[in-house]
Amino acid sequence: MSDSSDLYVIIMAGGRGTRFWPRSRRSLPKQCLSLDGGRTLIQKTVDRVRPLAPAERVLVITAADMAGAIAEQLPELPAENILIEPEGRNTAPCVGWGVVEVRRRGGPDAVIAVLPADHLIEDEDALRADLSAAAAAARGTGALVTLGLTPTRPETGFGYLELGAPAGDWEGRTLRDVARFVEKPDAQTAEGYLAGGNHLWNAGMFVFTVSAAAAAFAEHLPETWAGLERLAAAPDALAEIYPTLEKISFDFGIMERASRVITCPSSPGWSDVGGWIAAGEHLPESELGRALVRAGVALDAGGCVVHAPNKLVALVGVQDLVIVDTGDALLVCRADQAQRVREVIEVLGARGLDDLL
Amino acid sequence: MSDSSDLYVIIMAGGRGTRFWPRSRRSLPKQCLSLDGGRTLIQKTVDRVRPLAPAERVLVITAADMAGAIAEQLPELPAENILIEPEGRNTAPCVGWGVVEVRRRGGPDAVIAVLPADHLIEDEDALRADLSAAAAAARGTGALVTLGLTPTRPETGFGYLELGAPAGDWEGRTLRDVARFVEKPDAQTAEGYLAGGNHLWNAGMFVFTVSAAAAAFAEHLPETWAGLERLAAAPDALAEIYPTLEKISFDFGIMERASRVITCPSSPGWSDVGGWIAAGEHLPESELGRALVRAGVALDAGGCVVHAPNKLVALVGVQDLVIVDTGDALLVCRADQAQRVREVIEVLGARGLDDLL
Repeated sequence: MSDSSDLYVIIMAGGRGTRFWPRSRRSLPKQCLSLDGGRTLIQKTVDRVRPLAPAERVLVITAADMAGAIAEQLPELPAENILIEPEGRNTAPCVGWGVVEVRRRGGPDAVIAVLPADHLIEDEDALRADLSAAAAAARGTGALVTLGLTPTRPETGFGYLELGAPAGDWEGRTLRDVARFVEKPDAQTAEGYLAGGNHLWNAGMFVFTVSAAAAAFAEHLPETWAGLERLAAAPDALAEIYPTLEKISFDFGIMERASRVITCPSSPGWSDVGGWIAAGEHLPESELGRALVRAGVALDAGGCVVHAPNKLVALVGVQDLVIVDTGDALLVCRADQAQRVREVIEVLGARGLDDLL
Repeated sequence: MSDSSDLYVIIMAGGRGTRFWPRSRRSLPKQCLSLDGGRTLIQKTVDRVRPLAPAERVLVITAADMAGAIAEQLPELPAENILIEPEGRNTAPCVGWGVVEVRRRGGPDAVIAVLPADHLIEDEDALRADLSAAAAAARGTGALVTLGLTPTRPETGFGYLELGAPAGDWEGRTLRDVARFVEKPDAQTAEGYLAGGNHLWNAGMFVFTVSAAAAAFAEHLPETWAGLERLAAAPDALAEIYPTLEKISFDFGIMERASRVITCPSSPGWSDVGGWIAAGEHLPESELGRALVRAGVALDAGGCVVHAPNKLVALVGVQDLVIVDTGDALLVCRADQAQRVREVIEVLGARGLDDLL
């Protein structure tokens, strides 16, 4: 594992992360938050790949209303490495734009790692080793490579990869063909996947060469690719061309249709931090439960997730709450209803409280 | 009822009000809080008596660490009307100091109304009429007069006055002798008092002439009175004399021992706002329950008391909580355990978090 001068990283940073309201806002989405009081999720994402690729080869693709916060958080990135979508068109146009941009900078043999901006990784060395092996496989096979995460629970919220034949050894790892992509399973099926050991989570981390991606786009999304080629020839026409591209996900439009996809099995202690309960697992343990606070006092209380940096929080007689405090808003929510934060946002929108969205 | 030029008001403002933590602090006690977002409790107290006595005849007795906040909140009071106790010696020395101070300013025939600084009154006209009648009775009889509040619930947290014979009509009201003072009753006794109609709450509001008070002090607390007379002769010796005065309450040391006490029955919609639950009754109704907030969103939630001025508060799936937010502290407490706020303060003290006390 080392800096290989042909590796570029594309960080997908257009998500809104409404489940982290009230800390997340339109202009400060999930990836721009620090959940543990330290570096933000997108800062951690960039920090994590810097041993593989210098800042000059890290590109971030995001939306206009969050680009300011992202640029501020990533001062090491050249301004031209922050690509601003004129509007969101789902992930296939986004990845495709990244592909033509990397082709312009690094040529057709450059290798691209596509990474989400808002995930957490416990063992960063392990992730880098996985990405490095995936990059070697991408160079050596010309296949599209996806990182496949070893399941740790019978999760029904993710898609899965069904493993096929061995696909060669790269940097000491045995990669596998992906036999097929599986949609989010029901609970019983997910239990079977966990027990069977033949399915991995599809986590949106991809590695491929520019030429392999270009060929896959040209074959499976030819109109989109034609639009992206026009964009490559006339970058100033972004605002006209980009909004015409088909709204379709990279998973569905490219990965699931591609003739050969291989996976590098990975167990780096990954989390997509899907909401406050998941975020709690990354907060310090405290008598309150899991908490980022100045100090906590609990009387017959506990099991809560509390995010109130620099504040004293005193809980009396309450259990299993999610409590999130900001300068202008406070959420107190039963832990088993934490996903209803989206409904709160809908109510705020309907009432015209736009500054709180 | 009118401004009678011999009436002085002494406002007892030395209380700490720890039950309103985290909004109340050492330097910002209960009486200095605005519970409803408007005037603070002590401001309301002064506003309420202004039609009876101008600011020049309103004295506030308090402690050094809260005198600054009080003076700031009551700019209309002359500086010499804020009397600062060198240390707390319970209420008898405090009232006695007020008596010698009013004697110096208004002579022995002046009438004094002693009032707590931290109560709420719904019908202020009614209270002023009661105080005016009590003042007339104090002038006419030379007795110590106490306002007796008609019970509205079988309260076990207050002392009661047992009614005796009629004590004359003053300004259209029939005052009554106090047959005896009764300590806080048990629940069954309190139910009996409520049903019987012969007991009133003793709420710490007293009216008497300077000469009647002086005579009662001289008879029942002669050492304290001797000390206060030395103080009257040498005001600069306050710091030496005051700390030597016996620590005893005015109720126990004077009122319960006095040969004749009469009461003016009163029903002005009184509340001592004993804690957050009581305070909630004075907050605006909201889908959150009772709340002082910028806005509230409740999803399957309600029945809470929420004090978070200028903040949006969103509650999901929670009922019957007390939620109090300040810049540096947040309390989330089951409503039926609201009195345990005192325990929280003890823990904070033990941990050395003095800035939060």
